[in-house]
Amino acid sequence: MTEQRKTGWLRLAESDPIVRALDTLLRGAGQVMFQDSAWTGLFFLLGIIWGAWHEGIPEVAVGALIGLTIGTIAAYILAAPKEDIRKGLHGYNGILVGCALPTFFGSTLVCWVLVAAGSFFSTVIMLAVSRFLRTWKISAMTGPFVFTTWFILLASYNFAHFKIVGLPHPDLPVQPSDAMVALPGAEAMMQAILKGISQVFLIGNDVTGALFLVGLAGASLPAAIFAWCGSAVAVFTAYFLGASGGAVANGMYQFSAVLTAIGLGTTFYSPNWRVALYALLGTVFTVVVQGALNVALAPLGIPTLTFPFVIAAWLFLLPNIQFMPESHRSDSPSV
Amino acid sequence: MTEQRKTGWLRLAESDPIVRALDTLLRGAGQVMFQDSAWTGLFFLLGIIWGAWHEGIPEVAVGALIGLTIGTIAAYILAAPKEDIRKGLHGYNGILVGCALPTFFGSTLVCWVLVAAGSFFSTVIMLAVSRFLRTWKISAMTGPFVFTTWFILLASYNFAHFKIVGLPHPDLPVQPSDAMVALPGAEAMMQAILKGISQVFLIGNDVTGALFLVGLAGASLPAAIFAWCGSAVAVFTAYFLGASGGAVANGMYQFSAVLTAIGLGTTFYSPNWRVALYALLGTVFTVVVQGALNVALAPLGIPTLTFPFVIAAWLFLLPNIQFMPESHRSDSPSV
Amino acid sequence: MTEQRKTGWLRLAESDPIVRALDTLLRGAGQVMFQDSAWTGLFFLLGIIWGAWHEGIPEVAVGALIGLTIGTIAAYILAAPKEDIRKGLHGYNGILVGCALPTFFGSTLVCWVLVAAGSFFSTVIMLAVSRFLRTWKISAMTGPFVFTTWFILLASYNFAHFKIVGLPHPDLPVQPSDAMVALPGAEAMMQAILKGISQVFLIGNDVTGALFLVGLAGASLPAAIFAWCGSAVAVFTAYFLGASGGAVANGMYQFSAVLTAIGLGTTFYSPNWRVALYALLGTVFTVVVQGALNVALAPLGIPTLTFPFVIAAWLFLLPNIQFMPESHRSDSPSV
Repeated sequence: MTEQRKTGWLRLAESDPIVRALDTLLRGAGQVMFQDSAWTGLFFLLGIIWGAWHEGIPEVAVGALIGLTIGTIAAYILAAPKEDIRKGLHGYNGILVGCALPTFFGSTLVCWVLVAAGSFFSTVIMLAVSRFLRTWKISAMTGPFVFTTWFILLASYNFAHFKIVGLPHPDLPVQPSDAMVALPGAEAMMQAILKGISQVFLIGNDVTGALFLVGLAGASLPAAIFAWCGSAVAVFTAYFLGASGGAVANGMYQFSAVLTAIGLGTTFYSPNWRVALYALLGTVFTVVVQGALNVALAPLGIPTLTFPFVIAAWLFLLPNIQFMPESHRSDSPSV
Repeated sequence: MTEQRKTGWLRLAESDPIVRALDTLLRGAGQVMFQDSAWTGLFFLLGIIWGAWHEGIPEVAVGALIGLTIGTIAAYILAAPKEDIRKGLHGYNGILVGCALPTFFGSTLVCWVLVAAGSFFSTVIMLAVSRFLRTWKISAMTGPFVFTTWFILLASYNFAHFKIVGLPHPDLPVQPSDAMVALPGAEAMMQAILKGISQVFLIGNDVTGALFLVGLAGASLPAAIFAWCGSAVAVFTAYFLGASGGAVANGMYQFSAVLTAIGLGTTFYSPNWRVALYALLGTVFTVVVQGALNVALAPLGIPTLTFPFVIAAWLFLLPNIQFMPESHRSDSPSV
Repeated sequence: MTEQRKTGWLRLAESDPIVRALDTLLRGAGQVMFQDSAWTGLFFLLGIIWGAWHEGIPEVAVGALIGLTIGTIAAYILAAPKEDIRKGLHGYNGILVGCALPTFFGSTLVCWVLVAAGSFFSTVIMLAVSRFLRTWKISAMTGPFVFTTWFILLASYNFAHFKIVGLPHPDLPVQPSDAMVALPGAEAMMQAILKGISQVFLIGNDVTGALFLVGLAGASLPAAIFAWCGSAVAVFTAYFLGASGGAVANGMYQFSAVLTAIGLGTTFYSPNWRVALYALLGTVFTVVVQGALNVALAPLGIPTLTFPFVIAAWLFLLPNIQFMPESHRSDSPSV
């Protein structure tokens, strides 16, 4: 029935420009976790709205909608290839910029101007990074979102009109003590795994994480499974290495790992046992890089965003390892 | 008459090797703002000499001449393509290294050895970065100058024989207060715009800025207009974001923006309304990146130099946006 | 006789898979200084064992053997080209990871898991960096070792289960005083030069340095000469710039310079006078970059490892300068 509903929707999208625009925007939301699917995007937006409301920052949902829309419109203005826009490939960075800025800044005029300008910039940077990486047939991942947001977050310490509310204080790195490490119990573990998934959109809410999983499963059951497993692997890896229990409970070591697991395990390779092992390796690597970037950015007072995933994805995709005969491989995406 | 004088000079340059060498060096100075023009270079040198004298640091003018000469000679020794050298493409990084080091270091033996070695290194790095970027048909911009100078400035904190005089103290970033933000009055505004142009060569002097404009106008009136407008846009953007009024008055948020405006608006694209809007966007982006890099480099105690421009230029040129039919586009430069 | 012994060994390596595996591992050790030679690798291992024993950290030798083996096995698992593995090109990063981690961490379970995982990761990154750089026909150098180890060292400040023992305390950079600069006497100078060579494997021991030289000379006399001269040039350059005498005595400004000298002078170019001058320039540049990176990494509390060499090698090889007619040039290596 889901298939039938989607088909009806697709027919409508072909004939009605308003529906087509909506469909394009929803796919943009879905592409944050690599899904060219309006269904996924719809559940992602529902998850964001639920989470933003329940965490008491509705501005994050407003920012998400603005960023998604402006990022996509920017692609039309900048004459990006129509088929890329249609797949949502110019919406996913904008929506993340729109989630991030109201998370870290108070709701001032400068903040909203930056949401608009930043999501536009993110599409310029998307085109730039994609052209750069085309040489190696590698995707931009969430790099354009990260670069755009880092520039704006860093600039906030340099300009008086940014109202900083959610950034870590710039400081030299200090190792946490053993006493802060703790493996959560079964229920808290489930929550930590779901929050790790919701944190992909900078939201720490287990219902949001569950809505994201439903959205993923509607487009690709393996994607949902790899997302959940990636978050679980990250929880255990972080615990083994000695991460602060509070950070793990809030999903801070999981969100990049979730993206690595979905990307390596189901998007850029077709899932099989060897691919799953490679994705596992990449997921563990992502947690180490998460810790490394936490430290590297501490003196600057900005968060890693999803850059640990970007590093892991680029490094694990560049070798272009052939896990099966040429004819059976899934093609790398066009951007 | 200007045209005729230039033609006479060009004839002389063809027949007399000394005049040709002089012409090559002057073009090297002009290339800092993308002008393959001895006239521009002459006024740039006059502006540097005037500014260095009036700001009480004549060493900057001496450094400029040494850096320009050694950078260019290095290109001959390293067998760079003759036509690139002739256009001044191996002088503009050296002259900037020569301006920068005596600005930040006292005039010791080590300083002058580094001016000589640094301008030589800048040509090696120019060849390296140019070959790297050739894959995307993008120019090195002032990247080689920035990398060379950053290495030397950073090293100064590690070695006792560098006499540091003009570097910011390494410190964690702190947001300025609202009270420091102020829009200058009309006259101060004009000064801030001109100083923003002169700071391209690390000099804060309005007469120098005016001489630079005359030099630009002699080769390209649009270049002069975009330089002035770029500086003005940067003043207003920095004020809107809440920059410290003293820094704006001294041109610190404008110099990279000036280069972005000239580069995107007149050099790498032929000026028209759509290009002007794109250059405006790039100029605003440059001011945000200026703030971001100010913060990112604060713990290391080194200045951004023109790297905000380099980042903006690379990111806004990589998408290779077609603003008009293929046949009317200006070609990207050979290096 | 050496030649004959090697030939016998080679015959044995062809027929006996165990000997071939041993030969491959030894070549992996040798490749740290660009030598596709089991003889060189043997003396490098002897030097490591001697140095680790005498400096009281036998774990470094154990780590070296584990890292070398796992890095090489990883290349088989990841289906790297057989001829690259056979030349030792997938062992040299692993052996360095294995030397580095027990130098900076106490011998805990997490440490040894990271030696194993890190040397595996280093091969993934080797394949990634090599594919990235293939566009310019440039080698990965020790970049994969540096990136892997940096990620793990940075992460150590973020996780409680890493036992940090040998890392510099994270701090803002401070310039040393003139009083700390001193040129060592003749005997101390010889020691400093040899320790500079031994520090390529993170060991400060003059006998180890001498064993490394013997290993080099067995494969290539010019390589041994350039290694020694590179270390000597670095001692004098560091002294001229004003480096701390204690750091020079321990080889801290020399090890990257040694690699630059061998690489530029004998591996990527065939040695002649013009190449030697270029290698000299690159070696001096490496010492400046060593100082720069010491400062850049100070707030993060991690060492530069051999990244000054990597930067110098990439920047000085990218220009692809032709020092002699095409037909006489040594080809760039395949990876």
